[in-house]
Amino acid sequence: MAKGMGTVQEDATITAFPGLRCASGSIGIKRDGAADAALFVLERPALYAGVFTTNRFRSACVESAVERLQAGRAIQAVLITSGNANAGTGLDGRADTEMLAAAVGGALGISADQAIVLHTGVIGVPLRAQRLLPRIPDLAATLAATPEAGARAAHAIMTTDTRPKMAVRRAEISGRTGVVAGVAKGAGMIHPRLATMLCVVFTDFAVPAAVLQRALHQAAGTSFNAISVDGDTSPNDSVILLATGEAGELVEPGEIAAFTRVLADVCGDLAEMIVRDGEGATKFIEIDVSGAASAGDADRIACAVATSPLVKTAFYGADFNPGRILSAIGRSGADVRFDRLTLSIGGLPVFGGGQFLAVDSSAAKSAMQAHDVIVAIHAGAGDAHLRFFTCDLTPEYVRINGEYTT
Amino acid sequence: MAKGMGTVQEDATITAFPGLRCASGSIGIKRDGAADAALFVLERPALYAGVFTTNRFRSACVESAVERLQAGRAIQAVLITSGNANAGTGLDGRADTEMLAAAVGGALGISADQAIVLHTGVIGVPLRAQRLLPRIPDLAATLAATPEAGARAAHAIMTTDTRPKMAVRRAEISGRTGVVAGVAKGAGMIHPRLATMLCVVFTDFAVPAAVLQRALHQAAGTSFNAISVDGDTSPNDSVILLATGEAGELVEPGEIAAFTRVLADVCGDLAEMIVRDGEGATKFIEIDVSGAASAGDADRIACAVATSPLVKTAFYGADFNPGRILSAIGRSGADVRFDRLTLSIGGLPVFGGGQFLAVDSSAAKSAMQAHDVIVAIHAGAGDAHLRFFTCDLTPEYVRINGEYTT
Repeated sequence: MAKGMGTVQEDATITAFPGLRCASGSIGIKRDGAADAALFVLERPALYAGVFTTNRFRSACVESAVERLQAGRAIQAVLITSGNANAGTGLDGRADTEMLAAAVGGALGISADQAIVLHTGVIGVPLRAQRLLPRIPDLAATLAATPEAGARAAHAIMTTDTRPKMAVRRAEISGRTGVVAGVAKGAGMIHPRLATMLCVVFTDFAVPAAVLQRALHQAAGTSFNAISVDGDTSPNDSVILLATGEAGELVEPGEIAAFTRVLADVCGDLAEMIVRDGEGATKFIEIDVSGAASAGDADRIACAVATSPLVKTAFYGADFNPGRILSAIGRSGADVRFDRLTLSIGGLPVFGGGQFLAVDSSAAKSAMQAHDVIVAIHAGAGDAHLRFFTCDLTPEYVRINGEYTT
Repeated sequence: MAKGMGTVQEDATITAFPGLRCASGSIGIKRDGAADAALFVLERPALYAGVFTTNRFRSACVESAVERLQAGRAIQAVLITSGNANAGTGLDGRADTEMLAAAVGGALGISADQAIVLHTGVIGVPLRAQRLLPRIPDLAATLAATPEAGARAAHAIMTTDTRPKMAVRRAEISGRTGVVAGVAKGAGMIHPRLATMLCVVFTDFAVPAAVLQRALHQAAGTSFNAISVDGDTSPNDSVILLATGEAGELVEPGEIAAFTRVLADVCGDLAEMIVRDGEGATKFIEIDVSGAASAGDADRIACAVATSPLVKTAFYGADFNPGRILSAIGRSGADVRFDRLTLSIGGLPVFGGGQFLAVDSSAAKSAMQAHDVIVAIHAGAGDAHLRFFTCDLTPEYVRINGEYTT
């Protein structure tokens, strides 16, 4: 995780970001009084970019956040609540989200338009925000810039996560030193009922608005869009980027490229944390696709392999079964030349020259038993490439997801 | 299963088909001497139609069978071997398939082109057919038209199946009485390593060649293409239809339509048997999509729901979790109007009017606990419909697929 651009700030919490204050606590969503809200507040409104779920079934909070993005709003505060996704809740749900944004605005003395509210939790249960509003000023009163406040906020947005997820990198670009800092939640296993992936990234580099959105799209494409656990997306998936501009302006193409790489690395760090914290997962699988005919084909190949239950159960059981990987590639819809395709698992070549290679069975076993394994596929059809992260499918995953309410 | 066209011939084995003889036994593929070959032979060459895996990674046997289809060959014999899929085996693999076809031809006194050879089993292991050839005449010598011979042949093609799969229907169309009889193997869970679905259907109705192929496509579309266990396809999936013509000619559109319905019902019977025999499956789930904007959209919706691990684990655990179904529909890519969409589970309405409905929790529990459950989705976007079969995802599935060689 320490590879890539910028200097990784080990053990830094999200409040390492200049001017960021955090608060967390219970606002009454979870019945047991557990922390169910985290508030992130900047000193001034910041330039805002966002990427959201492609699922047509969208939470009220995504609609609200997209509206602010389309209106070009600068954002100063982000409230994340957990326990209820506020999805499939109709017009009342939409009003609930806006009511919370207004309460955050009121408590901070900013406009409701300058606050984004994101929800994560159970789908299809009315949020009834009215009852939560009195607790928002109390929450805002505890805002602090301490490392502890940042760590508690990262904890408060967890649902089935077992670990908080933060990544902070410091980078110097053309003499300007800035920070890209992100916080995320995600159960690894995409998990619509308990909601799924949310991420807020802060930077103090100043980049033009259009560039910021493009940079986030690009960074998400190689990080959050390149992880899969079960191929599902949720109505709530959101990645928010806020740029305060304090570290100075980046305008040259080379500077923008460098910024995008740091941003992609922070998103990549968080994406990797999400997969490693997968429910029931025992293995981290990196799928390296090269030689694809197009970027779309690289994605199709990686997705087909990463979402195949047969591939994922084979890794769980350390069962050497490369035919399952070939079959997944074959049904991916990508243009593949099987006479030129090569496949290796953990560095062990298993397919080439149009057929499976003779493989020593103990070498095969140890390749499958590794906790971190790289599946390298060269499609023999072009030069597009993609790195994709996934994990294994285990009985524990089925138990967690099948026995949630029982 | 007894619904639909034609009279179901309960307890009939495949040899209820007039003029069909079967043989089965060991030809030396499986090391333990278990039955690994079944031979189906007609009295005369029959008109041949076929549909095959859409996976670009195709077994040598699929290439061989497609070649005979494209050449318009009449087919008199089908040899199915189990234990080795002969996939990913290069040019040697292709030669192995043709060698077996020639051996069948030699034993029966017909041309190699009149015999189809299908394989099912492990991917990526050389078949080395040479060693198997001496056993083919012995196999042919035991051909018989008895019910026992039919039942034994249906057993011999099983891999991880727990039950043989045969369906026989007798139908009268315009005064001509004919039979449609099919035999299939499929582990329910699509299972590329142990290979997956193979099916041979016989009919004595006479229909023009072009019509036969179209009828099979149509029948497969509502049966084998409307079942899913994990979204994977294999290099070997094949459905072969042989029409002897003995029962008389069908040419009128109404007659062809009636024939296609009987054929679809036999294929549907077999498809249902495959899903019900799913590895580790404890539930049979029928997904009824209506109101879709197009046939493609109906398929997209049904597939997305049927392949969602979260939906399937929820059914396993009888966890009432309709948000997972909505999320799957939302990511399907189909044109859906969520303000008009309705969803019911086991007859219980759970979504409508743009939001989740209040549902009695004991009614919800009992809807989820049923062993046979219907998920009815009206997409509110058109009038296309589709019935799709799937099963639940269980820890036993993960165990079977993860611990296969360990």
